[in-house]
Amino acid sequence: MPNAIDRFLEQNLETYLQETMKLCAQPSVSATGEGVRECADLVEQILQKHGLKTQKFEGYGNPVVVGRAKGRSERTLLFYNHYDVQPPEPLELWDSPPFAPQIRDGKLYARGAKDDKGEFMARLAAVDAVRAAHGGELPCGVLFVVEGNEEVGSPGIAKFVQDHLDLLKCDGAIWEEGGIDFEERPGTSLGRRGILAVELEVKTLSRDAHSGNAHILPSAAWRMVRALASLKDENERILIPGFYDQVRPISEEDLELLRRLPDLEPYLRETFGVRGFVNNLQGFELRKAVFNPTCNIQGITTGYQGPGNKTVIPAKASAKLDFRLVPDQDPTDILKKLRVHLDAEGFTDVRITYTDYMFPARSDPKHPLVRLAAQAGEEVYGKPYQLIPLTGGSSPVYAFAGPLGIPVIDAGVGFGITNRTHAPNENIRLQDFHNAARHIARILDGFADLWSGEGSS
Amino acid sequence: MPNAIDRFLEQNLETYLQETMKLCAQPSVSATGEGVRECADLVEQILQKHGLKTQKFEGYGNPVVVGRAKGRSERTLLFYNHYDVQPPEPLELWDSPPFAPQIRDGKLYARGAKDDKGEFMARLAAVDAVRAAHGGELPCGVLFVVEGNEEVGSPGIAKFVQDHLDLLKCDGAIWEEGGIDFEERPGTSLGRRGILAVELEVKTLSRDAHSGNAHILPSAAWRMVRALASLKDENERILIPGFYDQVRPISEEDLELLRRLPDLEPYLRETFGVRGFVNNLQGFELRKAVFNPTCNIQGITTGYQGPGNKTVIPAKASAKLDFRLVPDQDPTDILKKLRVHLDAEGFTDVRITYTDYMFPARSDPKHPLVRLAAQAGEEVYGKPYQLIPLTGGSSPVYAFAGPLGIPVIDAGVGFGITNRTHAPNENIRLQDFHNAARHIARILDGFADLWSGEGSS
Repeated sequence: MPNAIDRFLEQNLETYLQETMKLCAQPSVSATGEGVRECADLVEQILQKHGLKTQKFEGYGNPVVVGRAKGRSERTLLFYNHYDVQPPEPLELWDSPPFAPQIRDGKLYARGAKDDKGEFMARLAAVDAVRAAHGGELPCGVLFVVEGNEEVGSPGIAKFVQDHLDLLKCDGAIWEEGGIDFEERPGTSLGRRGILAVELEVKTLSRDAHSGNAHILPSAAWRMVRALASLKDENERILIPGFYDQVRPISEEDLELLRRLPDLEPYLRETFGVRGFVNNLQGFELRKAVFNPTCNIQGITTGYQGPGNKTVIPAKASAKLDFRLVPDQDPTDILKKLRVHLDAEGFTDVRITYTDYMFPARSDPKHPLVRLAAQAGEEVYGKPYQLIPLTGGSSPVYAFAGPLGIPVIDAGVGFGITNRTHAPNENIRLQDFHNAARHIARILDGFADLWSGEGSS
Repeated sequence: MPNAIDRFLEQNLETYLQETMKLCAQPSVSATGEGVRECADLVEQILQKHGLKTQKFEGYGNPVVVGRAKGRSERTLLFYNHYDVQPPEPLELWDSPPFAPQIRDGKLYARGAKDDKGEFMARLAAVDAVRAAHGGELPCGVLFVVEGNEEVGSPGIAKFVQDHLDLLKCDGAIWEEGGIDFEERPGTSLGRRGILAVELEVKTLSRDAHSGNAHILPSAAWRMVRALASLKDENERILIPGFYDQVRPISEEDLELLRRLPDLEPYLRETFGVRGFVNNLQGFELRKAVFNPTCNIQGITTGYQGPGNKTVIPAKASAKLDFRLVPDQDPTDILKKLRVHLDAEGFTDVRITYTDYMFPARSDPKHPLVRLAAQAGEEVYGKPYQLIPLTGGSSPVYAFAGPLGIPVIDAGVGFGITNRTHAPNENIRLQDFHNAARHIARILDGFADLWSGEGSS
């Protein structure tokens, strides 16, 4: 009932934007803990307000909030979202404060406006619209899982799913975001890279020393530079022995899907002001590169970082790293190999603290949910639907897809970089919020019917 | 007149300590500018209070304060000191606030207590003591040069000296500190290493990006790690072509002076909790290593440094470096060679900003001032006097010794590491303050007599 859905959303958009701003005004930085529990409470209240029965689960890190509503059919569609956000730093680069949401130029600016509070609210708008269009009853059940640790790698979510397989029984899932790319072309990712995030630390002195002693006293900064330099060669090849052992060659089917995807180059050049890409990649090679696992330095901390100079030998150094892993790499295996590598290179004094891991995951491109999302997407956006074999980021798709035996697709506000996801001035275009709600509502509307022919077969 | 001098200092010590605390309570961080001008005014007032005529010179960075008093003889002894201090960070490691001086356990704790406000005040105590012992008249002239940019490399002092050769005409100089080593053995350095301090900066993106793009977007953090790794091999050999061209081989005379010096190893192991030294140096090799120029990383700044992790590719990275240079290396030559090296290694995008340079310097071990300092030092400390051919740190000795044609010696509170110079909990032992004043007063007392036989020759 697309017409009734669209009418409802058109008439009520403002209400949902106001509610999104209220949610974004509540800080919920999982990296520091700021405001996280208050935000979980607020999410529970919002779910209740929209007619869902809620439960809040403790013991998996920050609370997991679950909301459910029954539908006419037994079929259930799961929505995965999260209420936590990335740290807002560097604060000086925001044009308006990160937790004082502001609408200007057709966009809502706030930390979390896109990732993932705006996405979450667009889904609740879709649920309300479908319910209204069906005379107050949903055609299928809906199940919201809203967690509070996604930005620190969802360390508890896999166990949460394993512990609640009955509660979470469903027939398909829509992941936290996505649904259109940076040129508003609809599509879905069929896979996510895994991640292993670690912090390396080394200490060479009991305290910083005067650099007039640099000929004799060992420097933690130099030690860290050398340990890092041992991890990767200048051609981006990761030098940890066995790192690539579980990497699958890219299949012909995936290469074909990649070929149909648009050229990223002009967009990336403009967005990030880059002169050249990693390894001077161009054109199709840029798209293929998502099948390369990576070793990224998130940040390095050592020595004096203020203005001017300070003649010290740093006693301590640390570096935060993330490895993005491709099918079938295993983050626990890579962690072990990293330790073996550092030891073999003589860096037994470099401590590794694991901070985050997720496995890579893939979904079946032939599932009927994918077709439904494609049809709805083409209707809303008026463009062909894309199938993306693997995206560069990581998410706990693996924790749901495997144990629940369901396909997981994207449908939401789309490509995060234009929204400055994880960066200052994060925002969501009001038009994108509206379209995401229309797209999701159409999927909800048709979801139960995907199985309507089953009884006769 | 050592007895009268010692009596005066014994009776008046408390007054000078109180005045030192007042001076230390005034912040004067040249790296940030905090309190520097206020401190210059305070130093001028203090010099006047102790009977010196003052002048304050602008146009050489922070003000240079000069104080002079005539003596019975035309001979003049110059004291070089500085009123600026190192940044007090990390603040959390101080047991009492850096600019709230506190005496406990026989020590005065404050940023600058040792380097260089305590040293400066001990000299004023010596001047007063000698004047009192000689019935109100100094036996030789004294000339204080107290600058405010030493901790940022004294960028203006060489030009200041060149511009005021007449004003600064003198017959010898006592440098800012030193005079005893970490086991209270008296001695003087006969040379200082030079320094070249630079900041390297690189930018690869217009803003930080999500690390899910690490397979395509270039990382400033990795770029900096690779640029740094190109500077030095694992055996501490600096890889900049031509870096060692002007390094003199260690002379037999210097080797002999080095052989007479005490073993640093136990002291360094205890003070810095080190397990092993650079290049596994031991014993005599540790002493010889001061003749090796160094490339030190003062600090690296890139990416996310807060708690937890943040999945970003850093857009920018910077590193502060200092090179300690030995005779006859030239910091301006090394700066050029660094640029050539980075370009040759493909790092044309790594910007170099020079922040500080000083030339290496040496003084003549056979000058009579050295003998006088030795005799006075043995009397005060009761131990043989050491001649140190080269010390690891840098100071603008070169700016005075050359143009003024004078020997420059150390006489003061001694080895900085035990005083936590440049580190949290900087302090000065009250006993060391007292002894430094006694030592310097004896040098002042005998200085004019060094030339008393000249008229007859």
